[in-house]
Amino acid sequence: MPTYTKPALVLDERRTRRNIERMTEKAARLGLRFRPHFKTHQSRHIGRIFRDLGVEAITVSSVDMASYFAADGWRDILIAFPINVLEMADIRSLSSRCRLGLLVEASDGLAALAKGIAAPVDIWIKVDIGANRTGVDWNDGAAMIRICRDASRRPDLRLRGLLTHNGRTYGARTLPALGRSHADSLRKMRLARRRLAAAGFAGLEISVGDTPSCLRLGDFADVDEIRPGNFVLCDVMQLELGTCREADVAAAVACPVVAVHAKRREVVVYGGAIHLSKEDFVSRRDGRIFGRVCRPRGAGWGPVLPDTAVCALSQEHGVIRTTASEVGRIRPGDVLFVLPVHSCLTVNLWGNYVCLDGTKIPTMRSESL
Amino acid sequence: MPTYTKPALVLDERRTRRNIERMTEKAARLGLRFRPHFKTHQSRHIGRIFRDLGVEAITVSSVDMASYFAADGWRDILIAFPINVLEMADIRSLSSRCRLGLLVEASDGLAALAKGIAAPVDIWIKVDIGANRTGVDWNDGAAMIRICRDASRRPDLRLRGLLTHNGRTYGARTLPALGRSHADSLRKMRLARRRLAAAGFAGLEISVGDTPSCLRLGDFADVDEIRPGNFVLCDVMQLELGTCREADVAAAVACPVVAVHAKRREVVVYGGAIHLSKEDFVSRRDGRIFGRVCRPRGAGWGPVLPDTAVCALSQEHGVIRTTASEVGRIRPGDVLFVLPVHSCLTVNLWGNYVCLDGTKIPTMRSESL
Repeated sequence: MPTYTKPALVLDERRTRRNIERMTEKAARLGLRFRPHFKTHQSRHIGRIFRDLGVEAITVSSVDMASYFAADGWRDILIAFPINVLEMADIRSLSSRCRLGLLVEASDGLAALAKGIAAPVDIWIKVDIGANRTGVDWNDGAAMIRICRDASRRPDLRLRGLLTHNGRTYGARTLPALGRSHADSLRKMRLARRRLAAAGFAGLEISVGDTPSCLRLGDFADVDEIRPGNFVLCDVMQLELGTCREADVAAAVACPVVAVHAKRREVVVYGGAIHLSKEDFVSRRDGRIFGRVCRPRGAGWGPVLPDTAVCALSQEHGVIRTTASEVGRIRPGDVLFVLPVHSCLTVNLWGNYVCLDGTKIPTMRSESL
Repeated sequence: MPTYTKPALVLDERRTRRNIERMTEKAARLGLRFRPHFKTHQSRHIGRIFRDLGVEAITVSSVDMASYFAADGWRDILIAFPINVLEMADIRSLSSRCRLGLLVEASDGLAALAKGIAAPVDIWIKVDIGANRTGVDWNDGAAMIRICRDASRRPDLRLRGLLTHNGRTYGARTLPALGRSHADSLRKMRLARRRLAAAGFAGLEISVGDTPSCLRLGDFADVDEIRPGNFVLCDVMQLELGTCREADVAAAVACPVVAVHAKRREVVVYGGAIHLSKEDFVSRRDGRIFGRVCRPRGAGWGPVLPDTAVCALSQEHGVIRTTASEVGRIRPGDVLFVLPVHSCLTVNLWGNYVCLDGTKIPTMRSESL
């Protein structure tokens, strides 16, 4: 078991593997292509766990991330981010090395795109089903037909399907609310596809895949592909939304205790915004929190301490608010484990994971420098 | 002038230098020791600008950062973070290489500390003047006297003074409110010092130094040392608090535009939480914002666009809300400059700065791997 003298990103690899196996099985059971999002773990090593289970297609969130995983042998990569025309040289290079999927949300630029690539690419129309970040409004049939018409004129652009990310599920605090949000998203995607089929563009696929829906729901009728990412590690966000259990959270930040303020029931740890990220969750019970807290157990961490949360973060400090009985048991020099609110942003801060047996696994951050 | 194809942390070195010169002069004028906090810039190169101006003492926020700057020749380093007893081996090594300052907030552990170091260290009592993060309550004379008594028994612990960080100034939205908060902090520090002098511990120094007070206020009577850090780069937080001008903001993130949604007056940029950090500021006019936005101008950036802000951040996306006229002028492929809310957390995400002439300056993140 490793000893921690300063903050470290700790990975429970057994849990990671179980999370991956479970989602792979679910996708197979539902007859869905599984195209996991690799932006959460950003690790070749974790990517290979998927590959060993037969996964062949992946999702990434940047051209750099696509290059990183292409270098590790991935040959079917979807960049789930609007095309950045300034990176055409790298996109061109990727298109020659793998089956590349790209998102479009307007017909402008398709001609330039077709000219810029070295080999045919898959075109996914990014659909905005109400999350209001990027995409064509699901109800804007005219815009979608324009994209289909313009893309289908260019043999190097393979019109593949409709893709959305229903980020609204992160606002659903109950299972029925989650189900309603997911059903609404699928209904809009089906309508959009039906409209395009009627206009002569048949056979388009549907790709969805936020982690809350993929973890908790079973109705993916008419869906061809799912792209969840966060489920690999889970985090406090999923815990608080009720979409995972404590035993599914596979990453935590080990934080040395540096001060104990018994009177105000606060513990200060070495572990701040630069170790956890400043992502918060507004909990009904505890207000704005930045993480949940566990004591060490075995080589990893134990259950989440009740009535305890990281309530403030500075650059290097975390302030934990806890109970009178808990604060009485904690001493400077102890190590606590903080479960992050959003594992994707936490992992991005680190150059490597430390596994429970002390092995280090590098991430893209340290391998791409 | 560099061209940006993906997000980059851009440094206006002329502004950085001017910010540093101005604060160095102010400290000299007020007769204060200037011990700038290096956690903001985390760069050897920027550190040397201070050194060229005669600065000899610095503040850092971790043992690792102390080691990084000690390796660049700094010989008077204060670690403004509670002692992490798990890092005693590194603290010992540092104590033999430089004049090391450490914070204590309780007499427990002083014996172990004295045993753990290789050469005498400076002891600063961390005082909590109401910010409630770390420190001895300013009014708890008994606890401070205990620390002084125990420290003064050990010749290797040089009792140096009282230190505070008045983080409450970041909640002061007007100059009078800032002045009141600062005056309250100094009053408490003076009282604490007077109490210790009466108990036989005379000659203790006072060290303070949040950036808002150091930028805007002139009354530092009875203070011996200031430790501001953020003023080097400034950011949207200082701008919104009215403690700096636009021309003082010396770092921005260059972000390619990837989508324009004219109807809802939104622009999506490649530039998200992993480029800017998720730090926010709640502006009275614009609500929760994650950055302000400028167009390119010359080799750098121009004025802040009115009625425009980064209103949402995902991992790689930033969503900018702007005006109808502005959104009409922005195209995918343009590069916008986002001024970060909190430059310290933004800089920490990057391995290097790009200067306006294209030169790259590494940060501790890339040099410590």
